Order: sequence, then structure tokens, then C-alpha cells
Amino acid sequence: MAGKRIVVLASGEGTNFQALIDAVAGGKLSATLAALVSDRKECGALERAKRNGIKAISFPRTPSNRGNYFEEFLAIIDGLKPDLIVLAGFMKIFPDWFILKFPMKIINTHPSLLPCFGGTGFYGLHVHERVIESGARISGCTAHFVIPAVDAGPIILQRSVAVEDNDTPESLSERVKEVEHEALVEAVYIVLQGNYRISGKRVLHPE
Amino acid sequence: MAGKRIVVLASGEGTNFQALIDAVAGGKLSATLAALVSDRKECGALERAKRNGIKAISFPRTPSNRGNYFEEFLAIIDGLKPDLIVLAGFMKIFPDWFILKFPMKIINTHPSLLPCFGGTGFYGLHVHERVIESGARISGCTAHFVIPAVDAGPIILQRSVAVEDNDTPESLSERVKEVEHEALVEAVYIVLQGNYRISGKRVLHPE
Repeated sequence: MAGKRIVVLASGEGTNFQALIDAVAGGKLSATLAALVSDRKECGALERAKRNGIKAISFPRTPSNRGNYFEEFLAIIDGLKPDLIVLAGFMKIFPDWFILKFPMKIINTHPSLLPCFGGTGFYGLHVHERVIESGARISGCTAHFVIPAVDAGPIILQRSVAVEDNDTPESLSERVKEVEHEALVEAVYIVLQGNYRISGKRVLHPE
Repeated sequence: MAGKRIVVLASGEGTNFQALIDAVAGGKLSATLAALVSDRKECGALERAKRNGIKAISFPRTPSNRGNYFEEFLAIIDGLKPDLIVLAGFMKIFPDWFILKFPMKIINTHPSLLPCFGGTGFYGLHVHERVIESGARISGCTAHFVIPAVDAGPIILQRSVAVEDNDTPESLSERVKEVEHEALVEAVYIVLQGNYRISGKRVLHPE
């Protein structure tokens, strides 16, 4: 996978992006982080990119680009020649045509065990609130390929965490984030290695 | 919990029932298995009861009891004076009025991580088939109280298992059954001890 180019998209603090930075620095991933692209003018993820010498591109929606925001976004991404696009807390939902430009080359993580607690309407702390209300005792995270249907792409891997009696959406979110970082790095590793096969919604990866 | 009376209802092989027999014999549960009641004329669970000196009651639906089957079933259960009723692979769905006679005194296990893959239509191997098709990499089982809505009662506990690349519904079912036996014994222990509190769909049990 050496030399493979990863483009990371993020809107927030960029803790998942940091996990990728650490994995590359630590030799777990031998790929290149080609750029961090954000839909925000400023955010933690952009700062992390700058601090780590990674190209940081801010491309917020403005009155002048509103009509063809995603067309311009696509031109930026194309120019970066990504082998893999990682959504790391990216808060915009791409139009279908955008996703179909990169078939099985975009991956995302979701903070629940999909297909449960996924789809439109499940984001951020709301996911964990619903998990706790449901009485579920096991939650986790899912790394998956992105397809036009939200949170419904083939699942690369999942990691679980226990839901505790005294959990709040905030505390559960923190614990899920820890396994999410591991899951994302592992999923990127699997996909860049190319040692997998997609069968329906399953991603089979002998190792 | 010593002296608490458990009535087990089963329709099949009774492997969950066997887990309870073993837990009582091994001292993990100090309760009494008051009876095994089946809706079948013959089944493995009834045989296990007989082999272990536990009262075995067969009460199949017949032309003569068809009109008031559950009323007669209730009379049988009432006569056994249960502190807890365990559904251990019992294939009939009780009418709401029956369940409401035993509020939070009936428990069941389901071979998935509820609320996912539960509700009417999800039973037997079909559950595991759907889990595998979904691409999920983590499944498991749920021990829960029984309320009138199918598979929707407060969750006592859950146990997870990994879904493997080469899993079939049959192989996944086998691995889930192993953790289901542990989960059932643990759930019975918690409920008979009485050291829990129900909050919405959550069952909070310190320690």
C-alpha cells in the first residue's frame, strides 16, 4: 500500500484524522495523507493538518459557490488524486452522483453497530441517546464503504463497547470514539491492502 | 433467592433449559426448577425434565381446548406458583392479557442484539440469515423481560459474538446459543436476586 494517497474530509475536531496521522507516523499505515479537506472555514481538523505538515484545504459553502458547491468540491478532490477518501466527521451529505464518482473508494465510520441506529437522523450524540434509551447493553462502531444510501454501504468491520448503567450520551460517545479510531485505522489498512472481497453488504477479508 | 420457583416453558430441544438445570445442579442458581411446561406432546425439553426429576407437563393445543387454550394454560401456570417464568425456546406467542398477569415475571432470550433483528418475523435461523446479509460483524443475544410487544421488553443483559467470513446461519446460531446459555443463567440470577431497577427499557443492576 506504500504510496497510496489518502484524502481525509472532516468538519470538526478531527480526532479520527489524528488517529490516521498517528498510524502513518507510527508505521502502521505506510500510505500518504495527501490532504485534509474541510467544509468549514476553521476547525480542529484543519489545525491538525497544518501542525503536521499536511495540506489543509478549507472549502466552505458561500453565496458564490452555492449553486455548484459539490461540482467544485469534486474538482478539488480529483486534483488530489486520491486512492482512498476517508470521511472523518464530515458533516455534509454528498449527492449520489458525487459518491458514484468514487465507487468503493470512500469510507466512513458510524458510532453504532449498523444496521442498528443508522440512517438519516442518527448523528452525533443523538445516536448514543437512542442506544441508551433502547436498553441495549452493547454498542460500538462500524467502518463501512459509502454508497448513496446513508449508513447502508458494505461493512468493513465493527468494534463493540459495553453500555454501562451510568452512561450518558457523552460518556458512551467517548468510549465509542476510542474503538472508532482503532476501527478506522484497521479499515483503511484492509482497504489499501486490497485483500478483501465485497459480497452484497459483506466485506470478506481473509488475513 | 433460595426457594424461588422457576417455571420453564419450551417447545424444542431445551438446550436453554439444560443450561438452567446445570446452573441449579452446580450451585450457580439456588432456585427450584418447579416444572417444564411444553406446548408439544413430545419434545427434547420434556425428556430432559423427566431425566432430571423435574415435573414435565405437556399441554398441546387440541380441538377440545382450542377455544380457551391460554385460559387453561394460565390455570396450569398459576397452579405451579412461579416466582419467575422463563421462555426457553417456547414457540407460542401469548396474548397480551396473559403476559400482563405476570408483570416483569416472564423473561426470554432472543438470538440477536436487540433492538436489531427483533420483532415478529425474526425467529430461528432467519435471524442469523438476516444478520449475515446485513454485513454486521457483531451479533449476539439478548435476555429481556417479556411485555406485550414482541422482543421489546426491558433488556436485562446482552452478550456479543463475532460474525465470521465463513459463517452460515447454522454456524452463527451455534455460537450465539453458547453465549445465550450463559446470558440466560446470568439474567435469571439477577432477576431472582432482585438487585435491579427498571427504567424505561433499561434494567439497571449495580455490580
